[in-house]
Amino acid sequence: MPSQERVKTGVPGLDELTNGGLVPKNLMLLTGTAGTGKTTISSQFIYEGAKKYGENGVYVTFEEPVESIKSSCMNYGMDFTELEEQNKVAFVKYDPFHIEDIYELIETNIKRIDAKRVVIDSISALGLYVKETPEIRRMIFNIAFLLRRLNCTAILISEILPMQESLSRFGVEEFVTDGVIVLYYSRTGSQFSRAMTIWKMRGSSHSSKLHPYKITEKGVVVYPKEEAIIK
Amino acid sequence: MPSQERVKTGVPGLDELTNGGLVPKNLMLLTGTAGTGKTTISSQFIYEGAKKYGENGVYVTFEEPVESIKSSCMNYGMDFTELEEQNKVAFVKYDPFHIEDIYELIETNIKRIDAKRVVIDSISALGLYVKETPEIRRMIFNIAFLLRRLNCTAILISEILPMQESLSRFGVEEFVTDGVIVLYYSRTGSQFSRAMTIWKMRGSSHSSKLHPYKITEKGVVVYPKEEAIIK
Amino acid sequence: MPSQERVKTGVPGLDELTNGGLVPKNLMLLTGTAGTGKTTISSQFIYEGAKKYGENGVYVTFEEPVESIKSSCMNYGMDFTELEEQNKVAFVKYDPFHIEDIYELIETNIKRIDAKRVVIDSISALGLYVKETPEIRRMIFNIAFLLRRLNCTAILISEILPMQESLSRFGVEEFVTDGVIVLYYSRTGSQFSRAMTIWKMRGSSHSSKLHPYKITEKGVVVYPKEEAIIK
Amino acid sequence: MPSQERVKTGVPGLDELTNGGLVPKNLMLLTGTAGTGKTTISSQFIYEGAKKYGENGVYVTFEEPVESIKSSCMNYGMDFTELEEQNKVAFVKYDPFHIEDIYELIETNIKRIDAKRVVIDSISALGLYVKETPEIRRMIFNIAFLLRRLNCTAILISEILPMQESLSRFGVEEFVTDGVIVLYYSRTGSQFSRAMTIWKMRGSSHSSKLHPYKITEKGVVVYPKEEAIIK
Amino acid sequence: MPSQERVKTGVPGLDELTNGGLVPKNLMLLTGTAGTGKTTISSQFIYEGAKKYGENGVYVTFEEPVESIKSSCMNYGMDFTELEEQNKVAFVKYDPFHIEDIYELIETNIKRIDAKRVVIDSISALGLYVKETPEIRRMIFNIAFLLRRLNCTAILISEILPMQESLSRFGVEEFVTDGVIVLYYSRTGSQFSRAMTIWKMRGSSHSSKLHPYKITEKGVVVYPKEEAIIK
Amino acid sequence: MPSQERVKTGVPGLDELTNGGLVPKNLMLLTGTAGTGKTTISSQFIYEGAKKYGENGVYVTFEEPVESIKSSCMNYGMDFTELEEQNKVAFVKYDPFHIEDIYELIETNIKRIDAKRVVIDSISALGLYVKETPEIRRMIFNIAFLLRRLNCTAILISEILPMQESLSRFGVEEFVTDGVIVLYYSRTGSQFSRAMTIWKMRGSSHSSKLHPYKITEKGVVVYPKEEAIIK
Repeated sequence: MPSQERVKTGVPGLDELTNGGLVPKNLMLLTGTAGTGKTTISSQFIYEGAKKYGENGVYVTFEEPVESIKSSCMNYGMDFTELEEQNKVAFVKYDPFHIEDIYELIETNIKRIDAKRVVIDSISALGLYVKETPEIRRMIFNIAFLLRRLNCTAILISEILPMQESLSRFGVEEFVTDGVIVLYYSRTGSQFSRAMTIWKMRGSSHSSKLHPYKITEKGVVVYPKEEAIIK
Repeated sequence: MPSQERVKTGVPGLDELTNGGLVPKNLMLLTGTAGTGKTTISSQFIYEGAKKYGENGVYVTFEEPVESIKSSCMNYGMDFTELEEQNKVAFVKYDPFHIEDIYELIETNIKRIDAKRVVIDSISALGLYVKETPEIRRMIFNIAFLLRRLNCTAILISEILPMQESLSRFGVEEFVTDGVIVLYYSRTGSQFSRAMTIWKMRGSSHSSKLHPYKITEKGVVVYPKEEAIIK
Repeated sequence: MPSQERVKTGVPGLDELTNGGLVPKNLMLLTGTAGTGKTTISSQFIYEGAKKYGENGVYVTFEEPVESIKSSCMNYGMDFTELEEQNKVAFVKYDPFHIEDIYELIETNIKRIDAKRVVIDSISALGLYVKETPEIRRMIFNIAFLLRRLNCTAILISEILPMQESLSRFGVEEFVTDGVIVLYYSRTGSQFSRAMTIWKMRGSSHSSKLHPYKITEKGVVVYPKEEAIIK
Repeated sequence: MPSQERVKTGVPGLDELTNGGLVPKNLMLLTGTAGTGKTTISSQFIYEGAKKYGENGVYVTFEEPVESIKSSCMNYGMDFTELEEQNKVAFVKYDPFHIEDIYELIETNIKRIDAKRVVIDSISALGLYVKETPEIRRMIFNIAFLLRRLNCTAILISEILPMQESLSRFGVEEFVTDGVIVLYYSRTGSQFSRAMTIWKMRGSSHSSKLHPYKITEKGVVVYPKEEAIIK
Repeated sequence: MPSQERVKTGVPGLDELTNGGLVPKNLMLLTGTAGTGKTTISSQFIYEGAKKYGENGVYVTFEEPVESIKSSCMNYGMDFTELEEQNKVAFVKYDPFHIEDIYELIETNIKRIDAKRVVIDSISALGLYVKETPEIRRMIFNIAFLLRRLNCTAILISEILPMQESLSRFGVEEFVTDGVIVLYYSRTGSQFSRAMTIWKMRGSSHSSKLHPYKITEKGVVVYPKEEAIIK
Repeated sequence: MPSQERVKTGVPGLDELTNGGLVPKNLMLLTGTAGTGKTTISSQFIYEGAKKYGENGVYVTFEEPVESIKSSCMNYGMDFTELEEQNKVAFVKYDPFHIEDIYELIETNIKRIDAKRVVIDSISALGLYVKETPEIRRMIFNIAFLLRRLNCTAILISEILPMQESLSRFGVEEFVTDGVIVLYYSRTGSQFSRAMTIWKMRGSSHSSKLHPYKITEKGVVVYPKEEAIIK
């Protein structure tokens, strides 16, 4: 494949699984059960983007208060206060009752701080307000189109349930995004452990293995040279 | 992670799994099938909070009569009579037919006794009165927001069924709470046994193992140094 | 736990699993597939209560004709004729089309013969006439409250299906009763066998093993010192 | 249990599993997937009843034409022509669109030929015309009540699906009948084989094993001294 | 069983599994997932019937164009052109929107060419246009009755899904047909293979084994002396 | 089977599984979970058709923007710019809200560039806009009929979910297409791998094995001489 600039995630070890980072202007689905670190990974993507890679970022949340997300990030050493003041990062809480406004909201915020990175947390929460499954597909396509037009690379969070082997909440998200990162939390004997795989990634080769990762005091760390075994 | 004051649960052994106790102002989901001791753990949290740690507590029940819960507690040596008279503990029974009043009810009772701990027993009962799943998410977020504003740490009980491997009744509770404690009751051969894990805990490292626990004459006791095996 | 008077079930061996019998004023769920002896155990509870322990009993049935239940009991040597004439036992058939009358009916019959024991056969039949699951929870709570007020100890029968691993028909009964006894009928090779466990029992320690039982000519007999293995 | 006259089924070997035959005035559920011989067993019950045991019988079918059933019976050497002419057997086809007439129809036919045996083929077909599950329970109870009043012993056919482990089509039939005979058709390697068990039988002890049976040129034959193994 | 004329299927090896062929005037269900050769077997039944056994045949299709079926048959060396011109075979495409006309359509075509064989491809397609399951049972019974009256032997195609272990699409077809032939397509390691069993056959003994079959250049060939193993 | 001209897919190794290529005028279902390369295979079919085999092609997409598909293809070295300018390939985006127009749209585009190949991406997206399952069958038949009339060979993409073992999204697609190619993505230990099988192919013999394939820098490559093992 043609060599290409990549978007560094800022998550230690993750970019080594994807040949150097995310593909610019792609929309990646980040999928996992509760407690797998989806919000942490997404926050690192925005935080390190602004801090280290000079790319501003917008974090859109539908239900969780912005203060709650930022407070969690503090636990991993990510203090967004200054970045927000400098207009390098914008947290946006959006009320999913007016779904038709979301595109304008995203666009406005991206333009306001000239963002190159976007996180949408989560399509699962957003989708609950949508009556018909086709509308979820359409909405994701519209978001993808908008972000591409605005030259943004994005992570879309998807929440799944432990008993399912699915890649998404509604069974359509993985088909309409450019890639899928799957996070596993699995028990062997009395020990739970974490693993991650790049299930799909348009426009890039990628690891086809299962790799261990940890949620450390500094956020998520991936071990690209190790392999994980889960049930 | 930054060291932090913790909220001691008062359940012997449990705080050793969570680096010293619950994170202040967090909302923990306590999930398990019937008979796993969810109400006992929650009662210990309130009882020991008031008795031992000087933190008053409110216990909200939606269906079960207060007398019935207090009478069960007596079996584990927890007599709430005096604590109630001293306005250190308040039991509140709430009729889920008027769901919109719940926030005011919780706030009034917290303020009345200056509570720092809250138990909501259970989101599963409450959720049955809610027509749409998004409303459950929203309600939990609202409760979490309210409790955080009032500086309370809380346990939210979730009832699950034996044949499921889910973390919650409605499949959304685990995503909108700050942490999840899962209680297992599992058979090996002719013997049933109990085990517990901290599935998720925002803002804290925690054990990622499965630990045995027992329901004794003094209530629930956790064995943080032992590991459990279940099917 | 504090020592306490217990309500003897009259089922040989069963009380040894529960530290001496049922807890007074508790509502026990008795759950099993077809043919596991739920009606037989319940009849023994009423019959032996009146005959041996001086406690009168009311047996409420929703669909099955009273004559049919009494005739089955005759096969196990339980003749209720005299007990009914002496007003020590009352069989009541209740038409579930008028669900709101059930509380009055139960109360009237308990008071009429000064009953201390009640059987409700079955919540599964009754629940079919209830449109909403919350109403089943509420109904069980109301029944539990009524029986407690009238100083009665009760068994509530729940019918489950062979392919399920659930504890109840509607998935809520086990949470709103004080205890659960589960009856298993399971095949190993070409042989079916019976086993029982006390899944949950509020206010009492209890066996956490699986015990064999038989349906003999004298009714159900439990083997508390033996352990059963099922698939 | 008190010794008792039994109703001989006329199926070779079957009565040895049930201590001598069916219990008079009981309603037995006969349950199995397609091709397990439910109609054949039921026909033998009626045929041998009239031919060998001097008990007349009524065979009620809801959909299948009477001629089709009788023609199948011919293959097993059961010619009902003469028995019908002598008013010893009556085949009745009933249109399930007028479900409320069924009781009168059954009663009329039983009285007309003074029947002691009844087959209802099938509750699964009948139940499809019933809108609410409680109505199926109620209908079976009414049929059971009617047959008992008229001193008849009856077989009620239930059709189940291969992928289910259930005992009945609607999940209620097994609770409201006096007994259940389950027919299995199961594959081991490349060979399918037949097995039968008496799952439940009110008022009688019975085998709790799985026994092989065959569909021979003379109809169904059970091997009560042999045990079967299925998956 | 009484010896009887049989209807030769024309599928090599198949008649050896059923004691010589189909039972005259019976309605056989032919069930299998996509690609198991249901249409090929049915076409051989019609083709060989007309060509080799002097029995004319009607092939009814609900959706697939007649040309498409005939073109597929050409691949297996079955050219129906001449047979149609000689009025020995009739292909009929029927629009399932007017379900009530189907009986007349079938009857007219059978009488027109004096057919003895009928294929209905498929009940699964037809059933999708039927609102209520009882109507599917009723329709199959009506078709069976009609065909019997017209002295025809018939195959009724049923499409099932790979993940199911069912015998039919709607769970009723196998009970209202006279027999069931099941076609399996199953993988062991990296190799898929085909197997067939006669699940049920009214009025005839039949193999109770699983037999391999192949789809060759000449159509389906069954190996009645070999046994197949599938997962 | 009669030797026949085949339609070369242009996917290295794939035609060796199907005796030389697709059958002209057939409609093949290409089914797989997210990330299995369905769009890549389909694009190769169109690209190589126009480039190497002199057959023009139409690619119909329902949701994904044409630019997005073409941009993905660039990653595999397929630049459609020139082919579009030369009217050898047409990409068509179709709004599924007006489903009744689809036939005209397909026909117009086929005629405009005299296409011999068509890709429909995807029936799963299209089907979400259809209210009734029979309509999906009918639509696929209509498309198949149209394409056959216009002498086109086509691939129809079907998206399935990881936890299912089905061949299609709606459970009908595999019955109304001429063939099915199934793509698997499966994990053994910590390694995911890809495999493919030809499940069904009307009018042609085909491999009945599972073969490995890879998504390389040049697009999909199949290894027809190797066998794959998946869970």
